[in-house]
Amino acid sequence: MREPPGRDGELRRLFQVMQLGDFARLDVYRDLRKGVPEVVYAAHKSDDELEAIVGSYLDERGYALVTRLDPDRAERLQRALTEGPEAAAETGFTYQPRARVLAAYTAAYQAPDERGCVGLLTAGTSDIPVAEEAALVVTHMGCRVERGYDTGVAGLHRLAEPLTRMLEAGADVLVVVAGMEGALPSVVAGLVDVPVIGVPTSTGYGLGGDGTAALLSMLQSCSPGLVTVNIDNGVGAGAAAALIARGRRD
Amino acid sequence: MREPPGRDGELRRLFQVMQLGDFARLDVYRDLRKGVPEVVYAAHKSDDELEAIVGSYLDERGYALVTRLDPDRAERLQRALTEGPEAAAETGFTYQPRARVLAAYTAAYQAPDERGCVGLLTAGTSDIPVAEEAALVVTHMGCRVERGYDTGVAGLHRLAEPLTRMLEAGADVLVVVAGMEGALPSVVAGLVDVPVIGVPTSTGYGLGGDGTAALLSMLQSCSPGLVTVNIDNGVGAGAAAALIARGRRD
Amino acid sequence: MREPPGRDGELRRLFQVMQLGDFARLDVYRDLRKGVPEVVYAAHKSDDELEAIVGSYLDERGYALVTRLDPDRAERLQRALTEGPEAAAETGFTYQPRARVLAAYTAAYQAPDERGCVGLLTAGTSDIPVAEEAALVVTHMGCRVERGYDTGVAGLHRLAEPLTRMLEAGADVLVVVAGMEGALPSVVAGLVDVPVIGVPTSTGYGLGGDGTAALLSMLQSCSPGLVTVNIDNGVGAGAAAALIARGRRD
Amino acid sequence: MREPPGRDGELRRLFQVMQLGDFARLDVYRDLRKGVPEVVYAAHKSDDELEAIVGSYLDERGYALVTRLDPDRAERLQRALTEGPEAAAETGFTYQPRARVLAAYTAAYQAPDERGCVGLLTAGTSDIPVAEEAALVVTHMGCRVERGYDTGVAGLHRLAEPLTRMLEAGADVLVVVAGMEGALPSVVAGLVDVPVIGVPTSTGYGLGGDGTAALLSMLQSCSPGLVTVNIDNGVGAGAAAALIARGRRD
Amino acid sequence: MREPPGRDGELRRLFQVMQLGDFARLDVYRDLRKGVPEVVYAAHKSDDELEAIVGSYLDERGYALVTRLDPDRAERLQRALTEGPEAAAETGFTYQPRARVLAAYTAAYQAPDERGCVGLLTAGTSDIPVAEEAALVVTHMGCRVERGYDTGVAGLHRLAEPLTRMLEAGADVLVVVAGMEGALPSVVAGLVDVPVIGVPTSTGYGLGGDGTAALLSMLQSCSPGLVTVNIDNGVGAGAAAALIARGRRD
Amino acid sequence: MREPPGRDGELRRLFQVMQLGDFARLDVYRDLRKGVPEVVYAAHKSDDELEAIVGSYLDERGYALVTRLDPDRAERLQRALTEGPEAAAETGFTYQPRARVLAAYTAAYQAPDERGCVGLLTAGTSDIPVAEEAALVVTHMGCRVERGYDTGVAGLHRLAEPLTRMLEAGADVLVVVAGMEGALPSVVAGLVDVPVIGVPTSTGYGLGGDGTAALLSMLQSCSPGLVTVNIDNGVGAGAAAALIARGRRD
Amino acid sequence: MREPPGRDGELRRLFQVMQLGDFARLDVYRDLRKGVPEVVYAAHKSDDELEAIVGSYLDERGYALVTRLDPDRAERLQRALTEGPEAAAETGFTYQPRARVLAAYTAAYQAPDERGCVGLLTAGTSDIPVAEEAALVVTHMGCRVERGYDTGVAGLHRLAEPLTRMLEAGADVLVVVAGMEGALPSVVAGLVDVPVIGVPTSTGYGLGGDGTAALLSMLQSCSPGLVTVNIDNGVGAGAAAALIARGRRD
Amino acid sequence: MREPPGRDGELRRLFQVMQLGDFARLDVYRDLRKGVPEVVYAAHKSDDELEAIVGSYLDERGYALVTRLDPDRAERLQRALTEGPEAAAETGFTYQPRARVLAAYTAAYQAPDERGCVGLLTAGTSDIPVAEEAALVVTHMGCRVERGYDTGVAGLHRLAEPLTRMLEAGADVLVVVAGMEGALPSVVAGLVDVPVIGVPTSTGYGLGGDGTAALLSMLQSCSPGLVTVNIDNGVGAGAAAALIARGRRD
Repeated sequence: MREPPGRDGELRRLFQVMQLGDFARLDVYRDLRKGVPEVVYAAHKSDDELEAIVGSYLDERGYALVTRLDPDRAERLQRALTEGPEAAAETGFTYQPRARVLAAYTAAYQAPDERGCVGLLTAGTSDIPVAEEAALVVTHMGCRVERGYDTGVAGLHRLAEPLTRMLEAGADVLVVVAGMEGALPSVVAGLVDVPVIGVPTSTGYGLGGDGTAALLSMLQSCSPGLVTVNIDNGVGAGAAAALIARGRRD
Repeated sequence: MREPPGRDGELRRLFQVMQLGDFARLDVYRDLRKGVPEVVYAAHKSDDELEAIVGSYLDERGYALVTRLDPDRAERLQRALTEGPEAAAETGFTYQPRARVLAAYTAAYQAPDERGCVGLLTAGTSDIPVAEEAALVVTHMGCRVERGYDTGVAGLHRLAEPLTRMLEAGADVLVVVAGMEGALPSVVAGLVDVPVIGVPTSTGYGLGGDGTAALLSMLQSCSPGLVTVNIDNGVGAGAAAALIARGRRD
Repeated sequence: MREPPGRDGELRRLFQVMQLGDFARLDVYRDLRKGVPEVVYAAHKSDDELEAIVGSYLDERGYALVTRLDPDRAERLQRALTEGPEAAAETGFTYQPRARVLAAYTAAYQAPDERGCVGLLTAGTSDIPVAEEAALVVTHMGCRVERGYDTGVAGLHRLAEPLTRMLEAGADVLVVVAGMEGALPSVVAGLVDVPVIGVPTSTGYGLGGDGTAALLSMLQSCSPGLVTVNIDNGVGAGAAAALIARGRRD
Repeated sequence: MREPPGRDGELRRLFQVMQLGDFARLDVYRDLRKGVPEVVYAAHKSDDELEAIVGSYLDERGYALVTRLDPDRAERLQRALTEGPEAAAETGFTYQPRARVLAAYTAAYQAPDERGCVGLLTAGTSDIPVAEEAALVVTHMGCRVERGYDTGVAGLHRLAEPLTRMLEAGADVLVVVAGMEGALPSVVAGLVDVPVIGVPTSTGYGLGGDGTAALLSMLQSCSPGLVTVNIDNGVGAGAAAALIARGRRD
Repeated sequence: MREPPGRDGELRRLFQVMQLGDFARLDVYRDLRKGVPEVVYAAHKSDDELEAIVGSYLDERGYALVTRLDPDRAERLQRALTEGPEAAAETGFTYQPRARVLAAYTAAYQAPDERGCVGLLTAGTSDIPVAEEAALVVTHMGCRVERGYDTGVAGLHRLAEPLTRMLEAGADVLVVVAGMEGALPSVVAGLVDVPVIGVPTSTGYGLGGDGTAALLSMLQSCSPGLVTVNIDNGVGAGAAAALIARGRRD
Repeated sequence: MREPPGRDGELRRLFQVMQLGDFARLDVYRDLRKGVPEVVYAAHKSDDELEAIVGSYLDERGYALVTRLDPDRAERLQRALTEGPEAAAETGFTYQPRARVLAAYTAAYQAPDERGCVGLLTAGTSDIPVAEEAALVVTHMGCRVERGYDTGVAGLHRLAEPLTRMLEAGADVLVVVAGMEGALPSVVAGLVDVPVIGVPTSTGYGLGGDGTAALLSMLQSCSPGLVTVNIDNGVGAGAAAALIARGRRD
Repeated sequence: MREPPGRDGELRRLFQVMQLGDFARLDVYRDLRKGVPEVVYAAHKSDDELEAIVGSYLDERGYALVTRLDPDRAERLQRALTEGPEAAAETGFTYQPRARVLAAYTAAYQAPDERGCVGLLTAGTSDIPVAEEAALVVTHMGCRVERGYDTGVAGLHRLAEPLTRMLEAGADVLVVVAGMEGALPSVVAGLVDVPVIGVPTSTGYGLGGDGTAALLSMLQSCSPGLVTVNIDNGVGAGAAAALIARGRRD
Repeated sequence: MREPPGRDGELRRLFQVMQLGDFARLDVYRDLRKGVPEVVYAAHKSDDELEAIVGSYLDERGYALVTRLDPDRAERLQRALTEGPEAAAETGFTYQPRARVLAAYTAAYQAPDERGCVGLLTAGTSDIPVAEEAALVVTHMGCRVERGYDTGVAGLHRLAEPLTRMLEAGADVLVVVAGMEGALPSVVAGLVDVPVIGVPTSTGYGLGGDGTAALLSMLQSCSPGLVTVNIDNGVGAGAAAALIARGRRD
């Protein structure tokens, strides 16, 4: 891993583009400019492309985050990255099969300094993978995470304990993940005085069950202070939440 | 008003059809067969058609209920029904301008015996006209109505008083009217042990603001015991609620 | 199975939440509060999660109902629940492969007292699995079920026998399941004087064939007394129907 | 009116195009080739364009049919066609305000020979204008029309009399016009052994109330022998029905 | 096969319903009442249900038509119908793998008398299976079929030969099957003086490629005399076409 | 104006509900609990309701904010609030006709302390009214606003000056309002390291021109750190932005 | 009008932005950079904004083009631009009421050199206003226009003359405007060897009648060489067509 | 391969149709008339049909292009075309597995003369297969291709190098392929003075992720000179681009 450009100098290097074959042009230091780590979306990429891209990020930045990565593809990717001749022996991996997210690190990786706290709530058990995508990003941006999963809407008393806990833990912003009718973010945003990011999930059925009902609910919400992202977009919610929790960088 | 057929005899008369000009064929005694009063939907009818239809119901059954009737049309209709040569002088009218519903009665009208109780909740002020359409039907089916309007979702404590009141008053079923994200029926159905009928309204804005978001929310609800009707269909909700509240007719 | 809280005392225990790992927070006594049994929706849950949740309900409440459970998953679940060291030997199972529903009981299970009657109609053969989801819930709420399947619309005379039979059997409410154009609930609601719950199914093809055409038909119905639930939502229809059939709990 | 080309000779004249200003190119003898009269759709045309087009058809073919023509525009059009210097004094008009259709004739007009019979049914009163658009075309193609309006679905007994009457009158095909849930064409097509053309109308409300629910119902129908046209397309239904009723031209 | 009821007598037997297990209620003589053969839609039925239903139709009516039947299911069905102890040895089958349609006959089957002619056109090669579904129904209703496949729109000269051929063969009605932009039925209906039934197919891609673009094109067509059915509904188009081609039954 | 409850004591008064007639139940101190001022949405309320609600907020809290208020209704409302017998003479109003927003204050109103800064960008001139709705809320929550309007996408150089200016002014979060293709928020979020809230507007035409295209663009954005609200929801964006800019309240 | 910057020098001036009040930032010389004239879309702008923007373009560039401008607004705009104290007396206007487009020029305006030819076809009379929007742009980019309006689809022989004429006139590209089923662009693109730009219009009715059917038809077209723009977007089609017709600028 | 008809003579042969079995009618010389090579869309064709069609084009025209061809089908097709008894030994193939496109040639194939240049840009790596479909067509129409892949929107600096390069290489038109929010074509069209063809791809997720969001973005674009094709329609974009780049054929 090369020494990254300093934040205020070497402006040109901050915008460096790395060409991979003829299929990718990596924006190597976007994380430094944006304050958000690069996350590789595996779903529409071939195995070869994925290995080249992840390998390059590991080389250049010392880490790589991957989402929507099925277990067998994860195994193949880890093998490719560690068995090749030039593979750095010291690369470490963390893979969560249910959330299908992978984090890879070299010895050179330096975690960001800790600042801010994000509360993560889900309405049901099925929403957890999306929430864990958000957690992946949030923790790699140096924020603490407080989790409260399966807190329901049909039976709001399940919400009381985790919500109280995360507000007392100092959460600067809440990410609320919900499928079906997606009412939980509205209910939560009606109760708290921090910003809330609603994440609709595709865990329903019938009309609107692809997440549309949940998304529309959040867009139509009467509760002020609620914003939203696309269906199942845990990564986007996590990035925005951590930017909010850390506050402006000066 | 002719003597209506008895409920068990005169089966043929129960199915009598009255031809009006060439534009309408009234099912005169449907209310006796179905237990639900006939409601005339004014929106797509011409003034002439409306007068003929309403006049005939008044003649035959002693009452007529009309919805989606703008104030100026209501005035014209009342004039037409009372000024004509054959108009019965004793016809009485009740018109609610905000809900745009009209009830007309002759002296021969006999209200049904009172049985059952229906609770009516709305999320906001804008949902009241639709709720009052339901109330029109419910009261003409002989059920008591308990109202609780503008109980909100962003701020659930506003719900506590009216909900408690109507359960204590013995409501057999709740009709919950809500626009925007339409979460209130889900929340209510998660709290009570009587059936809940959700009525989405077209009081939102942006994507889903025509009532689609509210309708999808109710269809996707996690709360058991919740059923729904179409957007702004207060009449349908009222009819079903009163059938439930009265119980089976034996 | 622990002694459940009495209905009027021990209010706090009625709202008890049981934490399972970090992925589920069970609302143990919701059935006592709501009068509707808890139904576990298997489709979006992993096998591990499913076993933990179902096992806990069996322990706590003496029964568990599961829907959208494919035959091989059902087999694995039954094995897991009976082969483990702490598994109660006396657990019994009923699995219906076509409807993909499972009911599990321990010796401690006590069926509710019988009250009320629900009529179940389907338009076609393909609608039966959804109707059987409703039947699962209705019977576990103590109501009798009268079935009439494949009664059609193109050929209404097929409807006469089963409809007459279930009205004579004292049905308090009808659940009418239909895909394609979904006209049967409208036709039935035009004939009877009890409430009708329409359930659209995803058994069509072409535009609207995912159940949208059937759902819209029911939402637009001219027949008063018809309410609806989401596409393929047999569970929701069953819960509402049984609440109606049993009447208010005092 | 010039002598039209004979059906088998003068092929070139059958395809004659008449240029009006720079805004229209009339296909003068399409009615002779297709067997369907030209119908001018007034809604998207300016008054000047409308007058020029209608005037030309009157000159060339001795008649003109116009739809979606509001009363004030109809009056202006009749004035323009009769007051101008070259206006033929003998032009006659028939205007139906509710259906907003106009038929104009010169003395040269010869009605087609009578052949075939079309039955016209509507579900409600609001559907009549669309049915009358169909009647306009059918009668100008020389077919008899049997009408049965407001026959309902919620209350199928209203259907028995008109349906029997039109089958006994020898209807070769039925046009069934219905809004809301649009179930009537399915029900009728399940009962008769002639082809049925369903016409959805935009007379509903809420989700699908723009005619989509009715259209989807007809597209999804289980009844064989049912075809459909677009929402409110009475003209298209009438043209197809008359082609069917007259049979192949040899 | 029992002797079927005569067309004018034995009215009650014409409406006979045959109960199969608890999952189907067959309308045995619908073909005699409607003039359209019963077609079994295999897609949403289990193998057991399919065998029972097809077997019963063979027993009662001497034939059975099945659509959407994959090759392996077709094989299993044929085996089940011929290998069982009571299977009639003389049952014959015709299966078309590409169209996935099966026709089965016993020795008792009597084809209808031949009357009328239907022209079948497709825009592309991919539309042929849907056209063959229509052909299956048309031929079993006793009409001749004239085929012209892959006649295109981008290159209208390909259309000239087959269209001329089928008009000269005396086609009473045309069925025009088209996916993608679905323009062929409009173009054809602009050229001929017989009714045209457009059948949209799901052979496109991108927005509208599920057949919606083709369906909307046909619904919006400027060409009079064009009616339509749902996407991929070859059976429905065939039934309507044959009813038209045969004319009214007296 | 009564003395509001302190933030930590008088918890019960913080949840006080004020009943207005039978049509509204005001959540008087929500602004104190949520940190977001109450905004009255005028569009679906009658004049009488509006006056009662606005008057009550003025009485209780010393200010009232109203959106979607047409100029003539604004005038009537101001007259009603100042001409009545009990009207406080000292009430002041600020009305912006293009944005259709009204702010009213009594002498008792105390502005919040200033903290944080929000940048407001619009893509075009037509998006300004929505941006000004956001500004109304942001300024009443005590944040500074930096504006940059009509910065375009077709011609990105127009963006450079205002974007630089607002980052240098210390903006903690950006609200980016855009109709048509809605690309501006994505472009901006790709350039800055603060959170961005995209607001789609209904200023387009053709397919997606009701704001759907812009909304989908923002939901699908590749740029991390972008969240969104519903079409034209300037109020919601402003509330969330100010919560972010002020940071957590301790 | 100031001297515009030369095309190769004064790069900075080419990107000059002119601030109007706080509501608009004009990209003054975009036409020089892009080769496409600026067109002001009047629909979502207030009268004041429109006058300021149009006046500035007249001052700076010597011309201004405005679309979607109703006659009364056009009159007011012309008055404002000519009656003001600083108004240049010599400003000339061309306004087409049906197409609602306005062109304004000062004496300083210099038309571009003529190059290339664009053919403009419409399916019907109602599509002409959109075609004239395209003509406005095309002619101001220096291309000749060949028009052929109301050429139909139902009756393709109407197309032969104008299509032949414009190909013989040397059209480099065709713009084909069509509503309803929008089949004309597909048919044309199947016949010619120049690029075709399809423009769907909102001149239909029923499902897809807002232009969606026509747009989908063009997107799904089988004819190679066809591209499309949004519904009613004559301006966009004209700009692209003229860029194609003129060829690359070197 | 037979000698093709000359461009100006033998008009009849230019329109020759070749009948394959009963399933295809090939328009053999469309490429000569249209200037666009025939491309066989493999997705909805059976293997047998594909082999017959591709074989015939090879025989008649000396080449064949196939898209949407999975690797195993490609292998089978090549085997079938080279192993058969009459297979020409000298047939050569080029297959690109990621783009799933195949080009086959016989020795008789003559490439078109080179003229014009097309620039190809993609927003991401996942969009490359669609771009390569376009490249396949463009190169077989004799145009040079300049590629720039993965140029992004979140990080516009990645765009500078490839865009400059292709303009300097003399690109006459740009094809810009983008999924997700599809903003790249708008941004590019705002910068260049050549026509731009936007191609939306189905590489997103959540609402609009099937390519609808990208398509709507391009349709709503503010940038003049941008036209579009359907989602994933690389072939169509390539054909139109090459027609533009080559200019009119005289």
